[in-house]
Amino acid sequence: MIVPQNPTYAYIGAFVDELARAGMRDVVICPGSRSTPLTLTFAAEERIRKWVLVDERSAAFFALGIAKASGNAVTLVCTSGTAAANFFPAIAEAQQSHSPLLILTTDRPPELQEVGAPQTMGQQNLYGEHVKWFTNMALPEANETMLRYVRTMGNRAVVTAEATPHGPVHLNFPFREPLSNTPILASTLPLSSERQGIVWHGRETPAFREPFTEVAHQYSRARDEIVEEIAERIKKLERGLVIAGPTSRKWSYDAPRRLAQSLGWPLLVDPLSGGRFGAFWHSDVITNYDAFLRDPNFVKQNRVEVIIRFGAMPTSKPLLQYLETYPDALQIIVGDTNQWLNPTLNTFAFLFGDEHQVTQQLREQLATPSEASLWYKHWGSIAQATSTILTSTIEDYNDLFEGRVFMELQTLLPEDSHLVIGNSMPIRDCDTFLWGSAKNITVLGNRGVNGIDGMVSTALGVSVTRHKPTVLVVGDLTFYHDLNGLLAAKKYGLNLTIVVINNDGGGIFPFLPQAEHHPDHFEEYFGTPTGLDFSLVTAMYGGTFTRIENWNDFRAAVTRGITEGGLHVVEVPTNRESNVAMHRHLWKKVSEALAESRKQKADE
Amino acid sequence: MIVPQNPTYAYIGAFVDELARAGMRDVVICPGSRSTPLTLTFAAEERIRKWVLVDERSAAFFALGIAKASGNAVTLVCTSGTAAANFFPAIAEAQQSHSPLLILTTDRPPELQEVGAPQTMGQQNLYGEHVKWFTNMALPEANETMLRYVRTMGNRAVVTAEATPHGPVHLNFPFREPLSNTPILASTLPLSSERQGIVWHGRETPAFREPFTEVAHQYSRARDEIVEEIAERIKKLERGLVIAGPTSRKWSYDAPRRLAQSLGWPLLVDPLSGGRFGAFWHSDVITNYDAFLRDPNFVKQNRVEVIIRFGAMPTSKPLLQYLETYPDALQIIVGDTNQWLNPTLNTFAFLFGDEHQVTQQLREQLATPSEASLWYKHWGSIAQATSTILTSTIEDYNDLFEGRVFMELQTLLPEDSHLVIGNSMPIRDCDTFLWGSAKNITVLGNRGVNGIDGMVSTALGVSVTRHKPTVLVVGDLTFYHDLNGLLAAKKYGLNLTIVVINNDGGGIFPFLPQAEHHPDHFEEYFGTPTGLDFSLVTAMYGGTFTRIENWNDFRAAVTRGITEGGLHVVEVPTNRESNVAMHRHLWKKVSEALAESRKQKADE
Repeated sequence: MIVPQNPTYAYIGAFVDELARAGMRDVVICPGSRSTPLTLTFAAEERIRKWVLVDERSAAFFALGIAKASGNAVTLVCTSGTAAANFFPAIAEAQQSHSPLLILTTDRPPELQEVGAPQTMGQQNLYGEHVKWFTNMALPEANETMLRYVRTMGNRAVVTAEATPHGPVHLNFPFREPLSNTPILASTLPLSSERQGIVWHGRETPAFREPFTEVAHQYSRARDEIVEEIAERIKKLERGLVIAGPTSRKWSYDAPRRLAQSLGWPLLVDPLSGGRFGAFWHSDVITNYDAFLRDPNFVKQNRVEVIIRFGAMPTSKPLLQYLETYPDALQIIVGDTNQWLNPTLNTFAFLFGDEHQVTQQLREQLATPSEASLWYKHWGSIAQATSTILTSTIEDYNDLFEGRVFMELQTLLPEDSHLVIGNSMPIRDCDTFLWGSAKNITVLGNRGVNGIDGMVSTALGVSVTRHKPTVLVVGDLTFYHDLNGLLAAKKYGLNLTIVVINNDGGGIFPFLPQAEHHPDHFEEYFGTPTGLDFSLVTAMYGGTFTRIENWNDFRAAVTRGITEGGLHVVEVPTNRESNVAMHRHLWKKVSEALAESRKQKADE
Repeated sequence: MIVPQNPTYAYIGAFVDELARAGMRDVVICPGSRSTPLTLTFAAEERIRKWVLVDERSAAFFALGIAKASGNAVTLVCTSGTAAANFFPAIAEAQQSHSPLLILTTDRPPELQEVGAPQTMGQQNLYGEHVKWFTNMALPEANETMLRYVRTMGNRAVVTAEATPHGPVHLNFPFREPLSNTPILASTLPLSSERQGIVWHGRETPAFREPFTEVAHQYSRARDEIVEEIAERIKKLERGLVIAGPTSRKWSYDAPRRLAQSLGWPLLVDPLSGGRFGAFWHSDVITNYDAFLRDPNFVKQNRVEVIIRFGAMPTSKPLLQYLETYPDALQIIVGDTNQWLNPTLNTFAFLFGDEHQVTQQLREQLATPSEASLWYKHWGSIAQATSTILTSTIEDYNDLFEGRVFMELQTLLPEDSHLVIGNSMPIRDCDTFLWGSAKNITVLGNRGVNGIDGMVSTALGVSVTRHKPTVLVVGDLTFYHDLNGLLAAKKYGLNLTIVVINNDGGGIFPFLPQAEHHPDHFEEYFGTPTGLDFSLVTAMYGGTFTRIENWNDFRAAVTRGITEGGLHVVEVPTNRESNVAMHRHLWKKVSEALAESRKQKADE
């Protein structure tokens, strides 16, 4: 074996080679000096795409967006010091939303730690419980043991980030000077000839992998005795619901869908479950429960007896409150994260295991009814009545209603597109007004910790995964929070249409009691209008800005954004007060429609 | 005692009242829902100024700026989730640069933690080792014990943040719903009548304090036997230097100044030591060592025997290398932080104790020489020769040389002003070219961890402390990194003149070996030009933008910014390549001048 003159670069060469072999396809690099060995080696590595972004906070969310849309781990690189601290918000989101990231921070060597050297701070366990795995890497050396070590760590880091549940992994690399040298594309160091050229069965992307050590991931079933016991109880109950909550794995929606079909139960589908769009979509799926579960009479008259839930807790607060109304219902949660994700604190059983396996186990125990139950049909007809009244009321409304953005987008978005949704009001309106179709549209959001930070960068990361059209919907405060993210669009000529619902401030706050209790302090402390003219900053980043006046303008601007490509900002000016009033008007109309439908049924 | 109907607001009322009594005068609030009890109580509290900022990263640096300029702790408030993670960069800087911050994060109550509730993540010890003290607060209750508890925690948090060394303190508050209620300005809860109205001897600002528990801070001397032993050794040596490094306490510069005068040694003064400007300034102080310590002949011919250092390691790399050249010199470090801040790893002794006390202890042991030594005069004449050659060479240079910004500002800045310096090249050029004067100018920077993040916000925070004119000097990447910070200027009509040295990318990198080794990758991975037209974003934030062409323009624009007030951005367009060339030309000229001076001396 060659013993190189240049041990740091031999070591890092083997590491980066191993990342590529393990399937890593994107690295987001933040400029700095201490990170030079990683930067230059990645620069020379052709199997991995490089993205160089200056603001580490935006860079980390950009990486998160790629990871969320692709399902593959994405690498982040930064220099020492606060650069690494800027990654923190995206890492916390990645940990809670199960998104695979590999964070490589760089550091001074041990002899320059804790002695007041510049740009040096404690970087061990920097992100605490917010990463799946941390290790402090050994100083670079280029003997065979250390090259095996660095390959093992690189391989393991990718595998760990992508193991269930996906999440962030952090490696801290201490480097001594000299930092700059010639990259060694160490594709064979220290691989023996037997190991070279073995190509393992790969994932969808990339087409092949050849890691140093192959890993067969585990998948699990829930204990059969428990599943049988649960099934016995379920058999005695009639009024069941299957709920598909947000999940980081789109294919996992298949499990709740099969189970609901098999049991003949209504299926309630969160916008982030992957279940509102796709070839398998059918009109019986209930996607507007957020609207009709606000009706107290519906909730009172429709006691649920058993719930089988997949994924994280759904976005809808009315659904949460409905579940809390019936604490004695058997709430059964299926999934393989070992996390107790149920804030209603009413879980009857956790069936921990692979969602498809557990679904299969349940289906083997439970019979499919020969015809649709009254319960099933009732939920369907209520959903239908709700859609009808919402559609007609919204179409009759002259002002720009925020919820309509999603009804319009549902039509405008082409086959094979990405829709990324900001937090606070957009995700809630999306939940209520985006009812789904058979088009293949992937809906993504940052619902791990629900921050308003980093949405622009997340969407830009999403946009580079499969060259699909990508539309982001955000409020004006969320847009402001990550304006820096737009630099990536300018620099790499990315294609993103951003719908900014501009109500000049925090659109969710007028819905909260604070608005009524404290009108004197409301605007200053909650409304927080900024009065920013976003056309200027859009121009700085080379984008096209359109402020719409009506829905025809909206359709034209969004269609132009999608067809022309590049960065487009479509501003929808709205009013926070009238928006609250319209939402409340809609809930009233839904309640009236439901009362009417009950009356008709009673008359029949 | 009143037992209120509203325990959360009674508890938080007592807490906020106690912060005000303990001397807290500024709070920076980031909008959110979970933080409502704190927000509404601060809103009603007249003794504390409120700043409401949307981007938590910028908000935290804004708080840091107030803390750095005032020396007083500043409170930060945010909602749950990633909001808190956005504070992290400023907190890491505060911890390393000894700046007092009080971070109040808010959280769901225990029963909604770890169960998948929305916008909830682990917030215990969120900042790890990067805060001085963390505690998870008890749930609000309003009995007498809990009101004493919450006053004690509030009082202690302020005192701890402001104890030596200053630093950040983090309290995490869990709140149950309802979050909104009527603030209770609990100025007397649960204070007994004896405790009411006691006014303790206060700090400069505010004029009075009346905390629940008064605290007399400790101050310390170094062990006398050790000081005596050190003094005995120093007496035998002739070639000594006193070095004043960066410090968060401007007044502490007084100690190295007195010691240097007393010993008759040259005094080397870092720009962030507080020693380059002020009424006590005199021309013998050496402020351009960064230039002449680059001359290998000077270093070789001027062996130092003893160094007494105060504060953090100075900014100057040539000074660090000079100290490393003479590892056998007695390097003695004075200060009360108990931190081993010496990356040269050559410390002979740490004299831990209050800087003034230890200085006094040393002065009692050491005699003042009757006349100036040759060593002392030699350093002075070299410094003089260096200034002369640098001035004349720079004045003869026609292009816009980055270093000249500081020579110009030294003249332009009025009495009683703040100069805030960005990292990478500006702080280094400031070190080399800002030689000081008797004007009262406070120079500040973020040299704890040397990040390029948050500088705009830091400077805006500085600008609100004492209504002094404030000028910030940053590179274009640093300006870009914190553009969001400009919202505070627009919202509150703040007065800040920002000098943006725009070399379109990372101005420090061409000085590093990476530039020569890897010209092919250099621009993409290190230069990272953004090509942004900052006039647009300046207009969005209501500022005045001027791109200068010559130094007359520069003087006019900076003077206008200072006199008109408001936000002014003065762009100095420079070129990274010619800037490196000019720096190298200057070092050559300095070496030539020093050689000439040696020759003259030899001829005498």
